[in-house]
Amino acid sequence: MTKLPLPAILINGALVDQILVNDRGLQYGDGLFETIKIRQGRPLLWDAHLARLLLGCERLGIRSDGLLKRIEQDCQSFFSPALQETCILKLIVTRGVGERGYKPSNHVNPTVIVSMSPYTPNVPCQETGVTVRICDTALGINPLLAGIKHLNRLEQVLARQEWDDPHVSEGLMLDVDGNLVEGTMSNLFWAKDGVLFTPLLDRCGILGTVRQKLLSIAEQLDITVVEGRFSPDVLNSAEEVFLCNSAIDIWPVVKLAHKTWSIGPITRQFQAKLEEVYAC
Amino acid sequence: MTKLPLPAILINGALVDQILVNDRGLQYGDGLFETIKIRQGRPLLWDAHLARLLLGCERLGIRSDGLLKRIEQDCQSFFSPALQETCILKLIVTRGVGERGYKPSNHVNPTVIVSMSPYTPNVPCQETGVTVRICDTALGINPLLAGIKHLNRLEQVLARQEWDDPHVSEGLMLDVDGNLVEGTMSNLFWAKDGVLFTPLLDRCGILGTVRQKLLSIAEQLDITVVEGRFSPDVLNSAEEVFLCNSAIDIWPVVKLAHKTWSIGPITRQFQAKLEEVYAC
Repeated sequence: MTKLPLPAILINGALVDQILVNDRGLQYGDGLFETIKIRQGRPLLWDAHLARLLLGCERLGIRSDGLLKRIEQDCQSFFSPALQETCILKLIVTRGVGERGYKPSNHVNPTVIVSMSPYTPNVPCQETGVTVRICDTALGINPLLAGIKHLNRLEQVLARQEWDDPHVSEGLMLDVDGNLVEGTMSNLFWAKDGVLFTPLLDRCGILGTVRQKLLSIAEQLDITVVEGRFSPDVLNSAEEVFLCNSAIDIWPVVKLAHKTWSIGPITRQFQAKLEEVYAC
Repeated sequence: MTKLPLPAILINGALVDQILVNDRGLQYGDGLFETIKIRQGRPLLWDAHLARLLLGCERLGIRSDGLLKRIEQDCQSFFSPALQETCILKLIVTRGVGERGYKPSNHVNPTVIVSMSPYTPNVPCQETGVTVRICDTALGINPLLAGIKHLNRLEQVLARQEWDDPHVSEGLMLDVDGNLVEGTMSNLFWAKDGVLFTPLLDRCGILGTVRQKLLSIAEQLDITVVEGRFSPDVLNSAEEVFLCNSAIDIWPVVKLAHKTWSIGPITRQFQAKLEEVYAC
């Protein structure tokens, strides 16, 4: 392995940092992305990230023949135990360069962009928890785009623009019907009477890889999980609340407006279990 | 004026054709675009295009100080009567290059991309009309993003991917509640009993510049226009149906599934009036 200085960007295997203006990723947000944590050269939840990416390709009709080979080849230089520091790999796959017009050509080759940045862990958030807010920006409902991690992210940009207060770590987003969905960059869980709850993501939202892993951990632990549509009011009676994603792992939520929570045993148990999964 | 060979691309005034991967236009579809017809070096409906672009900047919180000056300066070389051929200018404005994360920095400068392509007019469509279909892909509802021409266009890409039949020129899209909204790339009008109808675009869809011009032409002609939410079934009793956008002008619709229409006097009157507007 040749050690690359970070940040490093590879586009279709070449060490460049620009794409053609005609790439449909720019023209229409016609593509997908994954944000993956690399620990000592080992990508965490790698199979889950690739599976979601392939699901996205299938949903959008992006060619995926040879795609995994291309990705693994391009990522190879980052996947070595010699890489001691923890890093964040952002993988973008666009449909590729196209002619004018929404209709994609069948012959276009996807653009694969691998970019690697240093990771700054936020241990205090994991240990002592975070304050969140409810965003005014709502998520539109469209089952065709729900679950996958596509490049049309204006709703998240608008929501994240709503606050500047550095003490507020995340914003919770509702759908246009007023149901809880997720954070701007994370998935949401809460616990009550030993049962875990999380919003159903069949109409909007992203099926986070850590979210999916926590669902299987819950199954192993014999903890019931209810996925459904809930008003944000349900959080008032929740005993524990937490957020998760690939970069932050699990952040306990300790405050939302005037409501406060302690960090409870279920949250700590999931943090420990996730760490075990990562350590394997 | 130095005559540029077409296609030509200018990015922030420089004759290059690539943008940085870190541009938020690619990362999140965080930007806007306009498609403008240039006739003999004269941009049609220029003020309307710039007004919609500025509305979009305001809605997304994209910096617009100095933006119009930058755009006019970059477009200058294309706006000359020496340019005899009709062209299409695509203007993209992204929020600019950013750090990782949805939150935009306040200090980022927008990226302005001007690209000019030759225009191939489709006279038969304007003269003899087009066949359309109803798309299965629905438009999500989100008032915050409705009306503006932003870069999150996956719904249109999915819809346009539904058919290959070259005899079908456009697909009509419904919102997730089943109301008529627009074509994948055009706005929709229909006439009945001397009244003109068009979908209300307050929850999704793009407020087309030609659409807005036709509304003011209708006012001049004392033709009532009803903007509202309509089921696609209303088209069964429509006497005339037509589509419009900046590139196609007005296309009469003559066929949708088993239903056919003749090209009526209202359609022809609007085609003539729009041509008059363009000629001034």
